[in-house]
Amino acid sequence: MTRQELIEQIREKKSFLCVGLDTDLKKIPEHLLADDDPMFAFNKAIIDATAPYCVAYKPNLAFYESNGVKGWISFEKTINYLHENYPNHFVIADAKRGDIGNTSTMYACTFFEEMNVDSLTVAPYMGEDSVTPFLQYEGKWVILLALTSNKGSHDFQLTEDQQGERLFEKVLRKSQEWGNKDNMMYVVGATQGRMFEDIRKIVPEHFLLVPGVGAQGGSLEEVCKYGMTKDCGLIVNSSRAIIYADKTERFAEVAAEKAKEVQLQMASLLNM
Amino acid sequence: MTRQELIEQIREKKSFLCVGLDTDLKKIPEHLLADDDPMFAFNKAIIDATAPYCVAYKPNLAFYESNGVKGWISFEKTINYLHENYPNHFVIADAKRGDIGNTSTMYACTFFEEMNVDSLTVAPYMGEDSVTPFLQYEGKWVILLALTSNKGSHDFQLTEDQQGERLFEKVLRKSQEWGNKDNMMYVVGATQGRMFEDIRKIVPEHFLLVPGVGAQGGSLEEVCKYGMTKDCGLIVNSSRAIIYADKTERFAEVAAEKAKEVQLQMASLLNM
Repeated sequence: MTRQELIEQIREKKSFLCVGLDTDLKKIPEHLLADDDPMFAFNKAIIDATAPYCVAYKPNLAFYESNGVKGWISFEKTINYLHENYPNHFVIADAKRGDIGNTSTMYACTFFEEMNVDSLTVAPYMGEDSVTPFLQYEGKWVILLALTSNKGSHDFQLTEDQQGERLFEKVLRKSQEWGNKDNMMYVVGATQGRMFEDIRKIVPEHFLLVPGVGAQGGSLEEVCKYGMTKDCGLIVNSSRAIIYADKTERFAEVAAEKAKEVQLQMASLLNM
Repeated sequence: MTRQELIEQIREKKSFLCVGLDTDLKKIPEHLLADDDPMFAFNKAIIDATAPYCVAYKPNLAFYESNGVKGWISFEKTINYLHENYPNHFVIADAKRGDIGNTSTMYACTFFEEMNVDSLTVAPYMGEDSVTPFLQYEGKWVILLALTSNKGSHDFQLTEDQQGERLFEKVLRKSQEWGNKDNMMYVVGATQGRMFEDIRKIVPEHFLLVPGVGAQGGSLEEVCKYGMTKDCGLIVNSSRAIIYADKTERFAEVAAEKAKEVQLQMASLLNM
């Protein structure tokens, strides 16, 4: 999906919501466990219910891998279901991959050729040759970790170098030598508040993938106040607060209500 | 596997070699492609041939994931084969995972409970809560990226902070607040030469997993000169130079010869 197509989707739907498919067999409604593939059954119902209110879906690979081969099958079925039924939704594989060049090339092949997702989250620690193999695919995106939503983000990401540049700022700046606003986004946690101002100084136009609204406590208003651009420039993810809002047979209906609530809030904050 | 058991294996075999199972369908001998599971057939033959000369195996997940569900099955079969036939070999899942706390917990469950591997490579960028969930398993190990073997390692890992501490040094120092020499190792590339001296100042006793000997050009002598401890303290990985040394029906035999060559060189360098 191109940047322009993504912006069009946001404009049409008045939403920049991404629904995180952190599908956990311990948390999905019990009646689904009788299904042949409970993870896929859950995802399918959540997707059908929330699709009108969001522009993106983000399955987190950890949850699928934890079920081994079966989980991997559920993941593939989910991606295929999205391709067939919701081709205008932006699909993010949240896998946080990154390795030496020839290995990153293998991961790129997996996610961008085999799975054909639109984007992949990538960890920056190993530098240029760990990231650039993912940038060789037309219409595909790297979403590079910059300033994450968790407590541990303070351990290394805020370290200032001798010129006073913090590590996440160096990641933002340096990675622009590798990609551009048409093939690269950044992960910035919603819990980072006014730091969005500092981030926008370095990447004024790039899209940011923003986790941490909802269960992790980030504020949507604050994210928009300091992070929104004229093209929106934000994809805000919510996982647990939407998909696990209800654990009865009404789970999908309630997920739709929650997604709609967020979408309405987003519509009021959007400036396009 | 405990630290003491690993040291015993190294002493008995006079080897600190890890064979990297970077199994690529495009590179394995053609006659194996007729097998039901070519990746596993290749791994099984390589393992049976090289087991006397190495103490560890390191499947790199990227190569398995690139074959989707089939690759995941090959990976599981390889791990099970190692458990059943070579329980004294240390098994490293080279996956470079790391995510917010609850997600890292899922990854830890996958690799340490479902797969039951001995260790997992982990990326440090997201800090403490991305690493500590992997440290909750008795006898299991985190192998944290410190100073990697690739060119991109210079982009961020060498950045000096205001106290003159480089990022990889901060990772080494800070992570010792989370784990210890009995449950944590570090990845240090063989291409880093005398940097091993600086690393040993911070982690004098920890084991280091050292990729980059062989195809990537690192020197075993140099790694040992600057990095070896009284308990060896090194696991040196070689992948391509061993497993793809020959592409005929003699591939496993030639892999054994190559592994033996490295083992003999290691025996001459070992001080225990």
